[in-house]
Amino acid sequence: MNLAITDVRLTPILVADPPLLNTQGVHQPYTPRLIVEVVTADGVTGVGETYGDTKYLELARPFAERLKGRQVSDLNGLFTVADQVAVDASRVVDAVDVGGLRGVQTADKLRLSVVSAFEVACLDALGKALGLPVHALLGGKVRDAVEYSAYLFYKWAGHPEGVACEKDDWGAAVDPAGVVEQARRFTERYGFNSFKLKGGVFPPDEEIAAVRALAEAFPGHPLRLDPNGAWSLETSLRVARELGDVLEYLEDPTLGTPAMAEVAERTGVPLATNMCVTTFAEIKEAFTTGAVGAVQVVLSDHHYWGGLRNTQQLAAVCRTFGVGVSMHSNTHLGISLAAMTHVAATVPNLHHACDSHYPWQSEDVLTERLTFEGGRIAVSDAPGLGVQLDRERLAVLHRRWLDDDGTLRDRDDAAAMRVADPEWVTPSMPRW
Amino acid sequence: MNLAITDVRLTPILVADPPLLNTQGVHQPYTPRLIVEVVTADGVTGVGETYGDTKYLELARPFAERLKGRQVSDLNGLFTVADQVAVDASRVVDAVDVGGLRGVQTADKLRLSVVSAFEVACLDALGKALGLPVHALLGGKVRDAVEYSAYLFYKWAGHPEGVACEKDDWGAAVDPAGVVEQARRFTERYGFNSFKLKGGVFPPDEEIAAVRALAEAFPGHPLRLDPNGAWSLETSLRVARELGDVLEYLEDPTLGTPAMAEVAERTGVPLATNMCVTTFAEIKEAFTTGAVGAVQVVLSDHHYWGGLRNTQQLAAVCRTFGVGVSMHSNTHLGISLAAMTHVAATVPNLHHACDSHYPWQSEDVLTERLTFEGGRIAVSDAPGLGVQLDRERLAVLHRRWLDDDGTLRDRDDAAAMRVADPEWVTPSMPRW
Repeated sequence: MNLAITDVRLTPILVADPPLLNTQGVHQPYTPRLIVEVVTADGVTGVGETYGDTKYLELARPFAERLKGRQVSDLNGLFTVADQVAVDASRVVDAVDVGGLRGVQTADKLRLSVVSAFEVACLDALGKALGLPVHALLGGKVRDAVEYSAYLFYKWAGHPEGVACEKDDWGAAVDPAGVVEQARRFTERYGFNSFKLKGGVFPPDEEIAAVRALAEAFPGHPLRLDPNGAWSLETSLRVARELGDVLEYLEDPTLGTPAMAEVAERTGVPLATNMCVTTFAEIKEAFTTGAVGAVQVVLSDHHYWGGLRNTQQLAAVCRTFGVGVSMHSNTHLGISLAAMTHVAATVPNLHHACDSHYPWQSEDVLTERLTFEGGRIAVSDAPGLGVQLDRERLAVLHRRWLDDDGTLRDRDDAAAMRVADPEWVTPSMPRW
Repeated sequence: MNLAITDVRLTPILVADPPLLNTQGVHQPYTPRLIVEVVTADGVTGVGETYGDTKYLELARPFAERLKGRQVSDLNGLFTVADQVAVDASRVVDAVDVGGLRGVQTADKLRLSVVSAFEVACLDALGKALGLPVHALLGGKVRDAVEYSAYLFYKWAGHPEGVACEKDDWGAAVDPAGVVEQARRFTERYGFNSFKLKGGVFPPDEEIAAVRALAEAFPGHPLRLDPNGAWSLETSLRVARELGDVLEYLEDPTLGTPAMAEVAERTGVPLATNMCVTTFAEIKEAFTTGAVGAVQVVLSDHHYWGGLRNTQQLAAVCRTFGVGVSMHSNTHLGISLAAMTHVAATVPNLHHACDSHYPWQSEDVLTERLTFEGGRIAVSDAPGLGVQLDRERLAVLHRRWLDDDGTLRDRDDAAAMRVADPEWVTPSMPRW
């Protein structure tokens, strides 16, 4: 058995994305993703996936070169490699990552977002080489299926007139009735039990009404609202108090550790985050500010936390400090969903359904899509991730990326919104 | 490849131990250890080691029964098994573990001390089955050798007259000159660069003098002093101030988080611990009390932290909170030294030489002893731990355990001291 890496392939692609709304704008009709393949001397191929914007691609290329000759089992060494790859400082000048709404941007976080794709690819290859599922390489599953939540979005029926795009059949959702209708379809199609509404799109009272409508339509089901930090401290306090009786948690109502800590302390409503705590460096302050800390649930995203093993470490830190843990999602494909499912299966203290955009993605690069049953994905016991790359589909989506004139290669939800509304500017925070 | 566990063997043994002194008494002439073997359906055997006192053995037996049929790769599941094994409450009534001087005793900690032996045995078996070293199962080594410190003890030349024992050639060390002489022999034999003196044995001024003598004899070498919490707050402050200029860190000068935090804050001398923080449950308070926290270096012991993967998680927690990490040692054999070396090799933030009693152990259960070169142990790349059980030696040491009338099966340093000094009672803390 030769576990040395002999080849690494990077394939940037553009995948269809519906017109989902958030506080910064609207999803582009196509969003960039990067598919990573790691090939061993024995010809075993492992796959990984991460953000596909230019800044990630720029980092992934020199990273890939340095991987050749290393062992796929040398996962800790990936961080050493990452430290050796220079980050173009101009790529991290934006304090807020416009496309991702995922907290502070740093050179390290960029690196970790690239590491994660290679880590998953190495785990997939290692698992295939050894005949073990990825979860077994992470210490073994503690559950046979992982629960996901329905990720509800305000959305338009379609992308703006004249924009090249794939159609979706979800229809519009711009008011409480539309949100409830979307939620109902989610439960019918996938069996989800928990619902998360992406907020920060409409004035808070409209979103409060939407959550109330969900609570009426689905009594007793866990509900979440995530305005991506669009609210002031005062607004956050008000919404938390108005919805405290029906929310499982409120996600990132406002920006910054001090304000989050104040909302948590004064309202007693559990706060979740993928913006306040997105790196290990932010944990200490967030967990120790105020009487109850700034966050009660950290939503991990293995892409920017640096992979599946770092996600396990994050879960251990959270468990140690009595903070909950679940999973954040950005637009992603089946490779990442499989990776999320494997690691989630190994985390004992994962007590909330994970988020996933996957139902919104009509396109994938797998021969067979992953399927939700009863809101859950069964944990695969097949070697590696248990997924298979569809090279034809990959080539088609890569061709789309090659043909793009650069407009879509760097996700920009505000730019996408300006196609519909030329006056749109990225809202300054807090928006309400 | 069939990774199912078909057999588990538990072999309690008694191993020779020199008359090393600590604040509670003296090491027994023989100390109990438990050797664990896990056998897979394919006939692969993995070995582990932990404390051998009756309370561990009592827990290990039902634990072993429950392991059969499980996969050696199912490491997370070991904790589920542990939760199913009842702990005899009478075994945890002592707040202080007299033999171990290793902090609070709880049912969970007892369980984890047993889990760790099985976890190491499973990792050893898994590595052998897959053809991978244990460090590769932990994400891969980030260093090729692990540095250890010389573990200096006040000691007698021999056990009390008339006591059955093995002789050692280290001689006595009951004053500064004896300690320096012992340290010199450690450097000659093993090349150690760091020195730790087990204190709490003599009045503080004598121990201060011993450390001063070490600093003069070995200028610039990292020095540590560990009285196992034998000092009052005032004494701790005084010793910290007197030795602050030569100590790498002061280990457990006093008991309890508040007092430790005060010593750390008022003296600026880094404090290490294997008593104040010995479980994940103790971390939050210890890391967040006072201006600098109660401890600056956590000395992990994979035995009671629950194994090698928990040790990695502990290291991640420490890294996240800016707290250092290194390794504690109690009397142990080569299996545990190999295990410690594998995990230490994977922890990037391990910046202090680890402790090990191994040089004091003239007996082992391996066909070949591990060797220190330049104070380091090379990380094995052989499958599993890279050690081989010597069944004849194991049988001899087990026979000694069988033949014992019960006197030595539960380590009791105070009882051992009473053999020499019938008036001895376990000192109440603080002793000085």
